[in-house]
Amino acid sequence: MQREEHDLIGGREVGAEVYWGIHTLRAVENFPLTGIPLSSHPELVVALAAVKEAAALAHRELGTLPEEKAGAIVGACREIRGGRLHDQFVVDVFQGGAGTSANMNANEVIANRALELLGHARGSYAHLHPHDDVNRSQSTNDVYPTAAKLALYAAAGRLSDAMSALRNAFAERGGVFAKTVKLGRTQLQDAVPMTLGQEFDAFALTVRDDAELVRLASEDLLEVNLGGTAIGTGLNADAGFAALAVTHLAAVSSAPVRHARDRVESTQGVGGFIRLSGAMRQFALRLSKICNDLRLLASGPRAGLGEIRLPELQAGSSIMPGKVNPVMPEAVNQVCFDVVGADAAVCAAAQAGQLQLNAFEPLIVHHLLNSANRLEAACVLLAERCVAGIEADEEHLLVLVENSSGLATALNPVIGYQRATALARQCQATGVPVRELAAREGLVPEEELAFLLDPRRLARPS
Amino acid sequence: MQREEHDLIGGREVGAEVYWGIHTLRAVENFPLTGIPLSSHPELVVALAAVKEAAALAHRELGTLPEEKAGAIVGACREIRGGRLHDQFVVDVFQGGAGTSANMNANEVIANRALELLGHARGSYAHLHPHDDVNRSQSTNDVYPTAAKLALYAAAGRLSDAMSALRNAFAERGGVFAKTVKLGRTQLQDAVPMTLGQEFDAFALTVRDDAELVRLASEDLLEVNLGGTAIGTGLNADAGFAALAVTHLAAVSSAPVRHARDRVESTQGVGGFIRLSGAMRQFALRLSKICNDLRLLASGPRAGLGEIRLPELQAGSSIMPGKVNPVMPEAVNQVCFDVVGADAAVCAAAQAGQLQLNAFEPLIVHHLLNSANRLEAACVLLAERCVAGIEADEEHLLVLVENSSGLATALNPVIGYQRATALARQCQATGVPVRELAAREGLVPEEELAFLLDPRRLARPS
Amino acid sequence: MQREEHDLIGGREVGAEVYWGIHTLRAVENFPLTGIPLSSHPELVVALAAVKEAAALAHRELGTLPEEKAGAIVGACREIRGGRLHDQFVVDVFQGGAGTSANMNANEVIANRALELLGHARGSYAHLHPHDDVNRSQSTNDVYPTAAKLALYAAAGRLSDAMSALRNAFAERGGVFAKTVKLGRTQLQDAVPMTLGQEFDAFALTVRDDAELVRLASEDLLEVNLGGTAIGTGLNADAGFAALAVTHLAAVSSAPVRHARDRVESTQGVGGFIRLSGAMRQFALRLSKICNDLRLLASGPRAGLGEIRLPELQAGSSIMPGKVNPVMPEAVNQVCFDVVGADAAVCAAAQAGQLQLNAFEPLIVHHLLNSANRLEAACVLLAERCVAGIEADEEHLLVLVENSSGLATALNPVIGYQRATALARQCQATGVPVRELAAREGLVPEEELAFLLDPRRLARPS
Amino acid sequence: MQREEHDLIGGREVGAEVYWGIHTLRAVENFPLTGIPLSSHPELVVALAAVKEAAALAHRELGTLPEEKAGAIVGACREIRGGRLHDQFVVDVFQGGAGTSANMNANEVIANRALELLGHARGSYAHLHPHDDVNRSQSTNDVYPTAAKLALYAAAGRLSDAMSALRNAFAERGGVFAKTVKLGRTQLQDAVPMTLGQEFDAFALTVRDDAELVRLASEDLLEVNLGGTAIGTGLNADAGFAALAVTHLAAVSSAPVRHARDRVESTQGVGGFIRLSGAMRQFALRLSKICNDLRLLASGPRAGLGEIRLPELQAGSSIMPGKVNPVMPEAVNQVCFDVVGADAAVCAAAQAGQLQLNAFEPLIVHHLLNSANRLEAACVLLAERCVAGIEADEEHLLVLVENSSGLATALNPVIGYQRATALARQCQATGVPVRELAAREGLVPEEELAFLLDPRRLARPS
Repeated sequence: MQREEHDLIGGREVGAEVYWGIHTLRAVENFPLTGIPLSSHPELVVALAAVKEAAALAHRELGTLPEEKAGAIVGACREIRGGRLHDQFVVDVFQGGAGTSANMNANEVIANRALELLGHARGSYAHLHPHDDVNRSQSTNDVYPTAAKLALYAAAGRLSDAMSALRNAFAERGGVFAKTVKLGRTQLQDAVPMTLGQEFDAFALTVRDDAELVRLASEDLLEVNLGGTAIGTGLNADAGFAALAVTHLAAVSSAPVRHARDRVESTQGVGGFIRLSGAMRQFALRLSKICNDLRLLASGPRAGLGEIRLPELQAGSSIMPGKVNPVMPEAVNQVCFDVVGADAAVCAAAQAGQLQLNAFEPLIVHHLLNSANRLEAACVLLAERCVAGIEADEEHLLVLVENSSGLATALNPVIGYQRATALARQCQATGVPVRELAAREGLVPEEELAFLLDPRRLARPS
Repeated sequence: MQREEHDLIGGREVGAEVYWGIHTLRAVENFPLTGIPLSSHPELVVALAAVKEAAALAHRELGTLPEEKAGAIVGACREIRGGRLHDQFVVDVFQGGAGTSANMNANEVIANRALELLGHARGSYAHLHPHDDVNRSQSTNDVYPTAAKLALYAAAGRLSDAMSALRNAFAERGGVFAKTVKLGRTQLQDAVPMTLGQEFDAFALTVRDDAELVRLASEDLLEVNLGGTAIGTGLNADAGFAALAVTHLAAVSSAPVRHARDRVESTQGVGGFIRLSGAMRQFALRLSKICNDLRLLASGPRAGLGEIRLPELQAGSSIMPGKVNPVMPEAVNQVCFDVVGADAAVCAAAQAGQLQLNAFEPLIVHHLLNSANRLEAACVLLAERCVAGIEADEEHLLVLVENSSGLATALNPVIGYQRATALARQCQATGVPVRELAAREGLVPEEELAFLLDPRRLARPS
Repeated sequence: MQREEHDLIGGREVGAEVYWGIHTLRAVENFPLTGIPLSSHPELVVALAAVKEAAALAHRELGTLPEEKAGAIVGACREIRGGRLHDQFVVDVFQGGAGTSANMNANEVIANRALELLGHARGSYAHLHPHDDVNRSQSTNDVYPTAAKLALYAAAGRLSDAMSALRNAFAERGGVFAKTVKLGRTQLQDAVPMTLGQEFDAFALTVRDDAELVRLASEDLLEVNLGGTAIGTGLNADAGFAALAVTHLAAVSSAPVRHARDRVESTQGVGGFIRLSGAMRQFALRLSKICNDLRLLASGPRAGLGEIRLPELQAGSSIMPGKVNPVMPEAVNQVCFDVVGADAAVCAAAQAGQLQLNAFEPLIVHHLLNSANRLEAACVLLAERCVAGIEADEEHLLVLVENSSGLATALNPVIGYQRATALARQCQATGVPVRELAAREGLVPEEELAFLLDPRRLARPS
Repeated sequence: MQREEHDLIGGREVGAEVYWGIHTLRAVENFPLTGIPLSSHPELVVALAAVKEAAALAHRELGTLPEEKAGAIVGACREIRGGRLHDQFVVDVFQGGAGTSANMNANEVIANRALELLGHARGSYAHLHPHDDVNRSQSTNDVYPTAAKLALYAAAGRLSDAMSALRNAFAERGGVFAKTVKLGRTQLQDAVPMTLGQEFDAFALTVRDDAELVRLASEDLLEVNLGGTAIGTGLNADAGFAALAVTHLAAVSSAPVRHARDRVESTQGVGGFIRLSGAMRQFALRLSKICNDLRLLASGPRAGLGEIRLPELQAGSSIMPGKVNPVMPEAVNQVCFDVVGADAAVCAAAQAGQLQLNAFEPLIVHHLLNSANRLEAACVLLAERCVAGIEADEEHLLVLVENSSGLATALNPVIGYQRATALARQCQATGVPVRELAAREGLVPEEELAFLLDPRRLARPS
């Protein structure tokens, strides 16, 4: 069974069983690009429903929609927010038109479900219309970015929590390793003593700082342009709608959304999206460096640095028996590279906006949601399946420090840079520890040497 | 019902109904990162099966696998290549370990299906073993990139065909518009006459050149490291295996694969992947520019350039009635930005390889397959749903040329740059056509002017 | 005349006339990569001198350097901060070693100038030593990033000022154009009325928001790791040095620098650099979009949108007389692309840090200083030579609005989306204004139409 | 002393001593963006002169310029090609207008020098005119990209030579290390034996392949659009000019330039530039990986992998005595990151072209010339100052192999993957070599073990 629907191009049959209508149908036919439907971003579907619900509540309060219509729309939206009908959000995540197809998909599904709730047949838009009622006082150009920001605000919040969990995992290990002395390295060359705890504490702080950056960026997203309609001027919005809609949206979504200071700017500027992308990219770059370090410190088991051991998660090789690879940091590295790439796509799209709109928001939103969700998963997995179980090879670490020519640095203030250089070179050439060489040469009394070259002291000199 | 399987970490129950085993199970648990399973890239699943089939055929010929085992493995691989069992390829596309989990997923599914074909229960690896038989003479580090290259070679071929179709669509319009005179623009400022046909011919040539670049890049992919095993040295490969396996692979896959000149380099170098990424990126950048031009030339309908009309595909706005947007070029722009982002991810991963391997190939392969497939879809849709139906507003185009101050350029050689400048400025200030101004001033005889300023002649001066 | 100097590799002759020594000489020979000397960044040279001066002042206060030595070092540093001896900073901006060569270049120049001030010959390091005295309690790994942050903080401050000037220029034009009605465009298609003032106000707000972002990012740079020496642990720093040095540095530089919370993290994390890069990139992306808009709005003079006129700065073409191009926005676009590229280089380098240090800071610092300085110049030039002189073609703008089918949007709430669509389509097909069509059909009383379709009202509906 | 010159904006005084004129003056005032003058790219200045000389020769042959004028222009151009007057090329490398200012700078300098050669005063353009004579039959839009391609073709040729030198240096070391057995590593974990020679041979091949890619890309640059004038249609070019000019250009420049197949496409497409950028980026990414490997293999001296020793080039630390850092690979890494960033800028600019021209070519050309020259320097320095002097620690390498659990891999075919796994795990846990463990368990006869586990054999199994 089919029903007939119409748009400015003509009429088309739509399956009777579906909630979406002709505009969605056109979009599905026009954009078979990624095969990834809108429903793959449930946060975005829920946020679209929240915006529509807030709009209907505002209209009910203003009297600009009859009680009955408003109620039916609200009912349909709540079902969607509760997880139902998501399979009706079928347009491709990539689509021309700045989100028009996503907005119309929502308008049609909500209208048809509302019609059902009112006892009418799907498609009988004379009773309740996707444009005139569900989309009343709205435009794709305020609805879509508002919903996207809501979805991203939620996703960024979850990411921030996951980053805190990762931070805690590093800090916990930092505490455990607080007295584990090791050799610090600069430029991959042996440098001076530190503790493994300091190394993990630094990781923890990096993650914490970036979590704060993500959080700050996400707050920008609370500035929404709802009520601005087509280009931010608010044309066709009923008087009082903008203020009420945003108030209701804050209540419906539990996110403290507020009006953009200038809705014209907000409609075209995409600043909030770039900022979040930049914050996630910064974290990705730095998390990638941390994963590189973990893999390097765990290299071996016998012909690498071998300073730490990562938990074993799976057999590492289809050919080399007994090989266990640092698969978790490797997978996280990949997520980080992915986020860097997504950021490049987002920025290419952001720069390409023209005049009063950025037509490429669907790509931006898709990538930002992916990045937030993938980084969230990566943080949790890395924390739970890797960091929490990291162990140190304390003995090996101590040997490396004590044999290091880097200890000569500690003699600089006593014997000067030039003589310390000679000692260090001798240590490198002969393998004789600096302490022994210095003692032999009688440069410093032995007991003073023991103090001067005590790795534990050197690791925390101040 | 479950069956028990073992790996170096311990034992686990695996669902009796699945074909994959404990290594796949570990990977599924370790990498819930994107939610996108390996099966979302059917080309890659098919290519993995092709590699395994070629290996089994080589072993049969060498006598290094019993006829019965080899036959069962070949049978299982053919089923997969025929489209069956793809739902058993369940590991996430992002995974630590350079593709180990993908390779083991294939080894396990093939082994268990082969066991069934031999009348044994799944999991009874004593009869046929995922490692010792299916993976014999192989390593993830040669199997996975070989399969990836096969999959990409196929995808790049389809992309190349789609690019040709797009090229043809532009060239066809170029022919139709061969005599449609218009004003060329440089730096968005009115310049000198040309034909719309020249404009579309240029688009066609750009696409053709890049199709050639993609084709050349894809040929690099035919150099495979199969037989190199873990690091390219061929350790544990049976004597004669490498040559035979590649020969069989060429036959099985119908792709003229050949040995990499240096399998150690090939195992770590990822040059072929970067090159393909670079070629697709070049096309994405230039296709994006073309889409920008199409949207600009079609801007309006009344307050834009209005030179061409794109086919109407869907209603453009949820608020502005009668608005039709250039959704197809917009969607293609987004695919192009996506490809640019994917390339950035690929390059970040490519640069991060270390020593004898690049552990990040799964990300590289995922993005390259996506890019090829998305660009392919974009080319076909753009050609069929947009370019083929483009129409010119010939009258409007002619008016713009004839009123343009740019025509003064044609008088340079006759009256010199300085006097031509004065004419052009006067035309800009007054709106009086250059021809009329020149005639008034008696600088050139009228009949000569008609010849000198004939837009059709100027568009194709040589 | 030459003098002989020594390092761990051996001895070398150094020109008697130069202030730098053997370490600088080695670096000059090792890194002839860009031909751009350190002195091309005077902010960085000055900042290095400020750090060295602060260190000497701290040592004087602690008694860890004799009054005489400390005074001579301070004297040399002040000369450099005053602009002298910059030509002695000769190492290439790209250099291996995380800035060691830049730090040694500073140590040597300061030591030799201080020696002169004390009446000694250059090179007579027994009296005052580049390492033991000038570099006392310091390491490249805290000196170089601290100086870089100081230099960038200053550069970012100037950039922020320039952005404010640009913001003001846009806002001033916004005021001038506050009542200039025009047609807004979405997706390059005619949309609904707005004012040109709204358009320029949006530009102003975008620039202001990004100026704030740059300012916030620059404050991160005030967290310095001075006193952390080699890896942040402070090894070899005299007791009390770290606190005093930072206090003096704040006084010497007039920048409120403070201690990093964790100097180990600070030494390796490069978070502040990435954040500043991200903020400048965000601005570059959005400024580029604004320049694109300016060029598009000014397209013509006769076959473009022709909404605004940019000041004429130079003849635009060597062949087309009278052509004037939007060269200033074009040049600014290029600066923006340059900043985007610099950011990519910075991020590639940032991600490549390993363990306790990022060895690639010289590249990071070079690019960030370039970006800040180039964006600063671009803002000032764009404001003064372009934006301030922009004029509107008010008459043309009004005609475009009144003939636009987009006006039908304003009838939606009165006649419904479907009938409004029909009107809009008729207007597009016939060129008859919407108001006339609506009047003809008697859909709305004429006097109401005049109100409903008044562009000035529609531009600011709320 | 000043002379007065005029353009469409008005008159200006120009210093009597300079060869450039009012168009250059305007540009200098308009674009104080980077402080880097055109003369910093001598290849580009020379190439501009070559194009102008070829044009004058063509006109002389056609009779479209009097012998005397043509001769004077040719004389001026030859001086510039010989290295004179470069200081007169003063416009900033970043400039609005697609190179118009660079072209006018050349036109003015050549005209004024030609005037001198003819015995006229500078500025007496009635005798010989920058536009009408020097620029005759030309436009910036064909002159500038043609000159840029010539300059880049030369630079890419030098780069290709430098890459060959680097390739040779790696290959030479590969030969020296042909029998030096070592442990290969995948994912930073111990894998299976190989030779150090194989490792260096792989580096050599990577560089050779990319040199070929650069060479292929550079051949695209030989397709020039000279004769196409403003938009590629050849408007205002004298009949016969295009063919003759390109023929002369090939002779003058010794580069086998040829006509672009479609000059309209060539004028807007920037394909050749993107392709060269992509080829250099690919090399940069892979050279960066090689430098990472060199630094990792040379890590230590005592707490790292310590497999190879790089030549010592300078003292590595201002605080740590005796520390020597891998400064050459580090510097080359930075050049690589720089090239990656330059490529990002080039691609952003390439994508931003509109309609018949890409206005951003000056940025593209600046970055490509920089990248080619910097990579060239990096290759030569890396080859001469680092690779050529690399030494292996053969003894250490052999110990690492013999103690490695990775040797268990070689037992797979004999004892099966599962038992080999047990052996490998035991070796990792106890430190007892695999060979000893296998012998103890009597799994394989001892003499067979000696053969099976011989690292030299395993390194080159086939």
